[in-house]
Amino acid sequence: MSIAEFRAELGDIPQEDNPRIVQQRSRDHYWYSPVLKAKLDQVTAEVVVSPRSTEEVKTVLRAAYKHGVAITPRGAGTGNYGQAMPLSGGAMLNLMNMNKVLEIKPDRVRAQAGAVLEAMDHETRAAVGGELRFHPSTYRMASLGGFIAGGSGGVGSVRWGGLRNLGSILGLKIVTCEAEPRELDLKGEDILKVAHAYGTNGIIVEAEMPLAPAYDWVDMIVGFDHFMDAAAFAQSVALQDGLLVKEVAPCAAPIPEAYFNRHKPYLKDGQSVVLLMVAPVSVDAMELFVSHHKGDLVYRGDQVSDEEKRRLPPVYELAWNHTTLRALKVDNSITYLQTRYPSIEHVRKIYEMLGDELPMHIEITRQDGEVTFAGLPLVRYTSEERLEEIIRIHEDNGCDVFNPHRYTLEEGGMKRTDRKQLEFKREADPKGILNPGKMIAWENPDFDFNAGKVWLFDGLNTVRQSA
Amino acid sequence: MSIAEFRAELGDIPQEDNPRIVQQRSRDHYWYSPVLKAKLDQVTAEVVVSPRSTEEVKTVLRAAYKHGVAITPRGAGTGNYGQAMPLSGGAMLNLMNMNKVLEIKPDRVRAQAGAVLEAMDHETRAAVGGELRFHPSTYRMASLGGFIAGGSGGVGSVRWGGLRNLGSILGLKIVTCEAEPRELDLKGEDILKVAHAYGTNGIIVEAEMPLAPAYDWVDMIVGFDHFMDAAAFAQSVALQDGLLVKEVAPCAAPIPEAYFNRHKPYLKDGQSVVLLMVAPVSVDAMELFVSHHKGDLVYRGDQVSDEEKRRLPPVYELAWNHTTLRALKVDNSITYLQTRYPSIEHVRKIYEMLGDELPMHIEITRQDGEVTFAGLPLVRYTSEERLEEIIRIHEDNGCDVFNPHRYTLEEGGMKRTDRKQLEFKREADPKGILNPGKMIAWENPDFDFNAGKVWLFDGLNTVRQSA
Repeated sequence: MSIAEFRAELGDIPQEDNPRIVQQRSRDHYWYSPVLKAKLDQVTAEVVVSPRSTEEVKTVLRAAYKHGVAITPRGAGTGNYGQAMPLSGGAMLNLMNMNKVLEIKPDRVRAQAGAVLEAMDHETRAAVGGELRFHPSTYRMASLGGFIAGGSGGVGSVRWGGLRNLGSILGLKIVTCEAEPRELDLKGEDILKVAHAYGTNGIIVEAEMPLAPAYDWVDMIVGFDHFMDAAAFAQSVALQDGLLVKEVAPCAAPIPEAYFNRHKPYLKDGQSVVLLMVAPVSVDAMELFVSHHKGDLVYRGDQVSDEEKRRLPPVYELAWNHTTLRALKVDNSITYLQTRYPSIEHVRKIYEMLGDELPMHIEITRQDGEVTFAGLPLVRYTSEERLEEIIRIHEDNGCDVFNPHRYTLEEGGMKRTDRKQLEFKREADPKGILNPGKMIAWENPDFDFNAGKVWLFDGLNTVRQSA
Repeated sequence: MSIAEFRAELGDIPQEDNPRIVQQRSRDHYWYSPVLKAKLDQVTAEVVVSPRSTEEVKTVLRAAYKHGVAITPRGAGTGNYGQAMPLSGGAMLNLMNMNKVLEIKPDRVRAQAGAVLEAMDHETRAAVGGELRFHPSTYRMASLGGFIAGGSGGVGSVRWGGLRNLGSILGLKIVTCEAEPRELDLKGEDILKVAHAYGTNGIIVEAEMPLAPAYDWVDMIVGFDHFMDAAAFAQSVALQDGLLVKEVAPCAAPIPEAYFNRHKPYLKDGQSVVLLMVAPVSVDAMELFVSHHKGDLVYRGDQVSDEEKRRLPPVYELAWNHTTLRALKVDNSITYLQTRYPSIEHVRKIYEMLGDELPMHIEITRQDGEVTFAGLPLVRYTSEERLEEIIRIHEDNGCDVFNPHRYTLEEGGMKRTDRKQLEFKREADPKGILNPGKMIAWENPDFDFNAGKVWLFDGLNTVRQSA
């Protein structure tokens, strides 16, 4: 491979080769994991290329193919698994210059890969009163393409499930990495080949997403003296068909008082909390429901002054991996896990077994139609061995772990690769230069597709059905 | 009681005393039940009074209280349990002259009791793109007050649950029946005192309801050779978090070919079907999901001509109790049950045990956050004894029955009365002249509040919580 020859074919497409800037742009938020931090800290590309159109993306991929230069696509770089880190060097493909909303209809939006999620919602709210069904807590920075290639769900998943579900992505346009790159419009089942594939099998340049009705969601924080009461309340809220909510997350003490600094005036010492986003139409009923559950409604976003509100982060920036981020800012020995607890009794068991070594944080989501405890517990990290032990304790007690301390698709446990996906990669990236090192099935021809246990994005050969 | 003196105090409030018309207006759709038909066929009021304002309702109730005249409130009379039938004669209080939409906000609507549901949606769609979360299959005729006083849920309940849920009704204005009738604005928990109480404890004159986003729902009918495949598909659809649907109802053969006359050109002999209403944004994904389940997509409302569409009833008029109505039009020996099957295995068991004596019809709904098989099976009626036996077979096999062949609140099994409600009735209707004979707890001071087994609208003393 020759980077120089590759670069010479890019015409006036913006390039950046200042090593410090390139290294900065070669990172995502992998450093939430001490394991990934040790492994990936030295990773860097040689150049950052920032195309401004699909035609320019084709130009980049044509040159990359010709000269065998590794291409790692990147949006805002807000992922946590090293998804967007260039293990083999080469070029970072920065898509943030392609940030246009292309079309808004009453129930859907089409945008370029680099469109920032919050900015998209701003446009769709104004145009048709709609917003994305769900978004990560990095809403204000994260881009659409990066979310689809490296995310799974987030704020709103308590109602709408995740990206893995049929109907959560309406269409994708990708560019293949061949001698003559092609634009492919993926629909239906084909979408799942590319969703959460870290850009290993085609570069997402556009996506069409369904819109949900937009509301002026009201942030609420409800305190409980006992974490398990918070967890039970959170589950009950999600099971209330008449209460429209976008976010429900129980966080055990001492997370709130130790890490939610700006909200401290509202929090009570020793309390666990449930973070809520509630549609205005459900606020009165939620207040009643909180009182039924003997919760303390310690914070209501619709009852603080505008000035106060500007000072406070929105509740979603206390939730999902922002919980971990806030903890890390206070105590850099903290890390986290991604888990799934089959029932509240599983939550109780792990909570009681691991105590303050695993400050519990759960995101209530819907998975396959059922209210589910998706855990994002903090971990007071001591060693990689102990982290593995904590994972084993989960598994031995019937709880799933999606390991966020792995950078390959397969080891993370979120995305199952299978023969169809591998075939698609052969078609879209015959030289294997798209984000190399991330798909084990590609590197290892003997890879067992049935390795691993649970998958959030299941393979394409089966469609999950209920009993 | 003196009807003449009562009538003399009503001023120019419209009255009707033609016995044939009064008897007609004293009926609802109780005749779906041969049991109720035998019991209620002779029931009639003496006069129909049709106030045009809350003030006129007060005038009527003041006079009724003074002269001890029984008052039975009535909207469109589309109920099926004799809810709106005057067991003690007296006056029918027809509220259909009070049909105004009073206020529309982006997420809620306030209307008078006599507002027709479809007409309300027409106004709210035009104003804010919103519609009621759910409605009965009698949508085009039924009124808001009647739905709240005598209904429970319907088309849309697969997503939004039912009227029983916290947040499904935002507020009610009722008029009490006292020497000096009062207007009470009920909020929060107090709403449940009056919801599904058949107007026994106050006359609903206004209601405020939440709005869901309105879509041009696409009617679909999916055929399956085996009913249990239809039932499994229906459950799976409701569990797909990414598919936005408003109606999911499996109907066993021979229901479709025997009773869905106008849709016959589309149906295949011997097939069971699933009736669907799908948001446009989910149509492509649904088509894919149908093919995964090897269903026959025999009808799509968005692919027939406008002329053809005018000829065909909307799919929701094949569902809920319209299924029964269509069967009755063909075969007047048919009746129905209201059941709840805890799992698909319970459906299978009853379906196999009772076969064609109980042509199976299920409405997939959400209850307490879970996808539930709410049964509305047809019954090939032979005798009251056999009907009771079929109910017993359900109960012996762990399936709940909400008996639609009873006209009291308590025996229907939908509404649990309790001390709080009884106290409220003492306050709102001290003489007990509102819809007399419908609340056993009122007539029988020794009534055991714990009689009966299951309740859709539970009492007010407990709030259903999840584990």
